[in-house]
Amino acid sequence: MSLKHWNKKHIISIRDFSRDEIDFVLKKSALMEDKLSSSKPVKLMKGRILANLFFEPSTRTRMSFETAMKRLGGKTVGFSVAETTSEAKGETITDTVRVVEGYADVIVLRHPAEGAARVASENIKIPLINGGDGANQHPTQTLLDLYTIQKEYKKIDGLSIAMVGDLKYGRTVHSLANALESYNVKLTFISPRELKMPKRMVNRLRDKNIEVKETTKLNIGNADVIYATRIQRERFPDLQEFERVKEAYVLDEIILNKLKDDAIIMHPLPRVSEISPEIDETRHARYFQQSRNGVPVRMALLCLVCGVDF
Amino acid sequence: MSLKHWNKKHIISIRDFSRDEIDFVLKKSALMEDKLSSSKPVKLMKGRILANLFFEPSTRTRMSFETAMKRLGGKTVGFSVAETTSEAKGETITDTVRVVEGYADVIVLRHPAEGAARVASENIKIPLINGGDGANQHPTQTLLDLYTIQKEYKKIDGLSIAMVGDLKYGRTVHSLANALESYNVKLTFISPRELKMPKRMVNRLRDKNIEVKETTKLNIGNADVIYATRIQRERFPDLQEFERVKEAYVLDEIILNKLKDDAIIMHPLPRVSEISPEIDETRHARYFQQSRNGVPVRMALLCLVCGVDF
Amino acid sequence: MSLKHWNKKHIISIRDFSRDEIDFVLKKSALMEDKLSSSKPVKLMKGRILANLFFEPSTRTRMSFETAMKRLGGKTVGFSVAETTSEAKGETITDTVRVVEGYADVIVLRHPAEGAARVASENIKIPLINGGDGANQHPTQTLLDLYTIQKEYKKIDGLSIAMVGDLKYGRTVHSLANALESYNVKLTFISPRELKMPKRMVNRLRDKNIEVKETTKLNIGNADVIYATRIQRERFPDLQEFERVKEAYVLDEIILNKLKDDAIIMHPLPRVSEISPEIDETRHARYFQQSRNGVPVRMALLCLVCGVDF
Repeated sequence: MSLKHWNKKHIISIRDFSRDEIDFVLKKSALMEDKLSSSKPVKLMKGRILANLFFEPSTRTRMSFETAMKRLGGKTVGFSVAETTSEAKGETITDTVRVVEGYADVIVLRHPAEGAARVASENIKIPLINGGDGANQHPTQTLLDLYTIQKEYKKIDGLSIAMVGDLKYGRTVHSLANALESYNVKLTFISPRELKMPKRMVNRLRDKNIEVKETTKLNIGNADVIYATRIQRERFPDLQEFERVKEAYVLDEIILNKLKDDAIIMHPLPRVSEISPEIDETRHARYFQQSRNGVPVRMALLCLVCGVDF
Repeated sequence: MSLKHWNKKHIISIRDFSRDEIDFVLKKSALMEDKLSSSKPVKLMKGRILANLFFEPSTRTRMSFETAMKRLGGKTVGFSVAETTSEAKGETITDTVRVVEGYADVIVLRHPAEGAARVASENIKIPLINGGDGANQHPTQTLLDLYTIQKEYKKIDGLSIAMVGDLKYGRTVHSLANALESYNVKLTFISPRELKMPKRMVNRLRDKNIEVKETTKLNIGNADVIYATRIQRERFPDLQEFERVKEAYVLDEIILNKLKDDAIIMHPLPRVSEISPEIDETRHARYFQQSRNGVPVRMALLCLVCGVDF
Repeated sequence: MSLKHWNKKHIISIRDFSRDEIDFVLKKSALMEDKLSSSKPVKLMKGRILANLFFEPSTRTRMSFETAMKRLGGKTVGFSVAETTSEAKGETITDTVRVVEGYADVIVLRHPAEGAARVASENIKIPLINGGDGANQHPTQTLLDLYTIQKEYKKIDGLSIAMVGDLKYGRTVHSLANALESYNVKLTFISPRELKMPKRMVNRLRDKNIEVKETTKLNIGNADVIYATRIQRERFPDLQEFERVKEAYVLDEIILNKLKDDAIIMHPLPRVSEISPEIDETRHARYFQQSRNGVPVRMALLCLVCGVDF
């Protein structure tokens, strides 16, 4: 895949990615991770500036992108919502990014409104990466999820992947499922009845010949990957019901002997109680590694959209 | 003009600038813009630190200065009001800048109190640049305004400049008018009766033999430069009156055929509705370019006050 | 003291330091200050990243560490409490630092809870420096205090040190007293009756054969070092009593002729009224210098814990 294909490309939604494109990013991310772990400092983005525009707080995503840019020898400017002026809030997102286009070489945008990233990208000549637009898309999270799986198993095809928790509202599981459409995987969706994966998504996956099982039981004995997500209190009118449901999907010591020997547990973090800390030191835990993987994946993407070869 | 003249100089008010000094900064800014657009990264401020002290939010000004410093190969530290501790708020501005003098090589200060920048600069040995002190001064905004005009017409003398909108409270138009005192320009002040340019300023300009016209009509047919500003709701006790007035000074498609062929439209941004988005793609729009021009102007100033030759 | 001794060491409390370790840090800080004042930019931390995690605002400490890292040629990422998401607030500090471990090479943590730094350091492999944990410890403040004394007198042993103000709640004076335990100094504790140094601390110092005097009078005629601290209104139920007490411990022009010729006045800053501004320009004032000394001390520590030789 040519450098030109990626140069100036906006990264808005994982749904815009073909399987070839995803595979290319994963391959480049692995190459970047090698560079990162070598002793020579990487200077691929030396002299360039990333603008982090965070209209919604997300210290984790912001820090990951900042780290990625700085590990590339580049610099960052930006803001987080806390400092935004009331005046600036009256400005359209289109104007904001056009002003920032005068400062930076690439933009990461986090915004509470669905579709904000797409709209913002339409009038600028520098590439924009969606760092999350409301409940909608967060494509770099999905790419680092896929990278974590690929890194573990050297493949994605053929794996059995269980998603656990809030499958109704969870942005990360939706995007991951979207991306997995082009792979030959078996999916198990494990959730309380109230938080099932939307029917439309299940149908779409089945149309693509993906084998999908849905269950309310924590049946993870066949899974190569368990992708856990947080169940939020706000989703339940009844506190007691929430407590009961939350309990039922906790990954703790008890589930360890049910797991396949080399199964890995992932989580987009932050977790609250859905994964018990005693899992952290087991061979199954991959969530901290997964978070760490965001750095080489974002480094690779930043270089690709800025037309920097590596 | 010697390097020594600028070294360690505080930049507090555009009124402290002679015409020679302004012209020198504009010339140096053009030189800096050439450097910026060359492929070689600029390293003039390598190893130096700028402290951005923002006691009032202004992500735009802060990002512009940060970009300027980083494009020079320098680094930045600082704070914005959101993170300021209640404890720190009890400290005098004099103490704050004396502490920061121990960290940085140059300070940019934004503060809600008029005169804060002058007071802050009095006890420190490193240069301080006023990034806006309340309704008072914002000298680098004026310099980038002048730079934008100069860049367009290769001159300022002889031009006809119309200022539109809130001329009573608008800090940017006051400072720009102050600076234009030393140039041979024709000024048209276009505003609602309630928001006229202060009499004292008009008189002062006329004393300097500047031709000044005042009108409530959007007569911009002879203007080489139209400088639009925002009319704020807060200025009007009566909402209906505000709406009527606001409508009357909107620059939109209708005014396009009244403009001189090469007239440019400027605005300090953010705009709300005073310039219609359909103007953005016309040959007249210069407001995004104007904002972008802040980077080389601030780069030039940072170098000058730090005694860095270029 | 070997480089290996310091590599990956967490800096949590001054009480963890032996006298040899303190002396080593002071010696290295002096070396670092020489490097800092030379014209050659220091590049000891080039390619490395410091994460500043500020769960409590402290622009001063944050800026000092950022400056230190940037003067070393390194980069910083991080957050201050203002931008923290409610979601992230539900996360344990242990999880937060494990995630950040995936981004950075060294962490500075500021947290309102006593003991937070110790807990946070327990599960990570990169070094963590305590930037203040509630009323508990702020070891780099103590090291820069000691460095300031050592720099002035070329020794600490044999000096007479007076601490003035709130000795009951003041974190800095407690830590400084702790550190001075291993030195041969004379201590005078000057405070209102309500704000005396805790008995336990006085006893501990006397057990170590430190000569300690306690008084409510501002007797500073024999002191080589006067360490002033702020008396906070919140400590007094009665406003009138607060005003009376505050007055009694103000260092102003009147006390100047009572001081030893070469006595120095220190203060952790910010000050409010406990040191009068007319002291600032006298030969006794060292508080701004003291604050500035934090930069080389923190530079030295950052290098030591990252295993960087200098």
